[in-house]
Amino acid sequence: MVVNKVYGIGVGPGSKDMITLKAQNVLKNTKKLFVPISKHGKTSVAYEIVKEFLNPETEVIELLFPMCKDEILLKKHWDEATEQIINSEGDVSIITIGDVTLYSTLSYVWHRLKDNKINVEILNGISSPFAAASALNIPLVEGDEKLAILPQGKDLENTLEHFDTVVIMKTNDLEEKLKNCNELMNNKEKYIIGIVNRVSCDNQKMDCGKIDEIDFNLVKEYLSLAIIKKIKE
Amino acid sequence: MVVNKVYGIGVGPGSKDMITLKAQNVLKNTKKLFVPISKHGKTSVAYEIVKEFLNPETEVIELLFPMCKDEILLKKHWDEATEQIINSEGDVSIITIGDVTLYSTLSYVWHRLKDNKINVEILNGISSPFAAASALNIPLVEGDEKLAILPQGKDLENTLEHFDTVVIMKTNDLEEKLKNCNELMNNKEKYIIGIVNRVSCDNQKMDCGKIDEIDFNLVKEYLSLAIIKKIKE
Repeated sequence: MVVNKVYGIGVGPGSKDMITLKAQNVLKNTKKLFVPISKHGKTSVAYEIVKEFLNPETEVIELLFPMCKDEILLKKHWDEATEQIINSEGDVSIITIGDVTLYSTLSYVWHRLKDNKINVEILNGISSPFAAASALNIPLVEGDEKLAILPQGKDLENTLEHFDTVVIMKTNDLEEKLKNCNELMNNKEKYIIGIVNRVSCDNQKMDCGKIDEIDFNLVKEYLSLAIIKKIKE
Repeated sequence: MVVNKVYGIGVGPGSKDMITLKAQNVLKNTKKLFVPISKHGKTSVAYEIVKEFLNPETEVIELLFPMCKDEILLKKHWDEATEQIINSEGDVSIITIGDVTLYSTLSYVWHRLKDNKINVEILNGISSPFAAASALNIPLVEGDEKLAILPQGKDLENTLEHFDTVVIMKTNDLEEKLKNCNELMNNKEKYIIGIVNRVSCDNQKMDCGKIDEIDFNLVKEYLSLAIIKKIKE
């Protein structure tokens, strides 16, 4: 038995109604849904978003993708997940929060499915930097401005010099990353910073201002991001 | 008469079903819809996406935003559009292709509405770089990779050195921009390039490969983009 088609579905940042019509339609007809979880017993934010759209008969299968840095262990989980998906019947779906093309754990399974010549269709979801800009009521980039997205704030110092807007994702220590950056600390008046935790969710928290005005206690967990904008003269 | 609330709605890259549920719901109840057009008599891609969701009684008003570089003329049009929106009754909507936070003409009206203390809510849409990555069947960024988005390929040479993935948007001369880049031309084996025109639309065109393998004739108009990825060793 080999799977016919795999839908890799980005379900958006958290709010149920930020999912696309296409994702909703595919989910309605999905007989088997794979749901990545980081720990047994832990709720999946992505599953919470989609569960109301599912057919009651949909079979839901959790896939364990632990949050760790042990490459060998991670590869074992990705391989196992891929095998489970491939050994399914008909069309199946796998979901992720945000979008599949931007820092998604699903991409590791996506590569493996492609290597096995499996038919994959990726359905986009709204990703968190865009939802955060909307929530903060500021455009990310306009006109000829350049945008950089940095995981864990990698190379922040150098990037700030060359870009108009910098987004930092995938870290739970935004305060440390920002306050260790000399360019930001030496030019506090030059930058406006927006921080958002769990954007678009019921428990969304956010703040916006110069670096000394921000309450970084709001963004002490992983589903947080910062948007740093150079103030135009 | 002053408008109560303005919804700035990103309707996604082109496919009708890539709109969000939230956008669809707001559009269903919209009494007045503003539609930016670049020229009188020219169809709006954004309007084509949403028209089936509208109530038959919705009043549709075109706003002329010409495609030109004359700042004074542009400002006149943005001011007039803002005035028309402000002088409306109740809640109104204004639409754009893609997302409002990423290089949208709407952002100029958004700023003016904010300056006038108007209540604005931005509804996100899928933006074209993400839809293009899905269409090309490649992730944009994974793990600790960095992403840069450059309008018109600005500073491409320098950016390629420091980023894993670079997106070029908002240009109709992708071939010239890429082939004038020494880093790309001197290291042709180091980069994989995906180009997409009118992503997700019925007339979508795309190609993917090394720089000499690409048919740049597919992307000779404005709604095109390129994704340039460094090949990992």
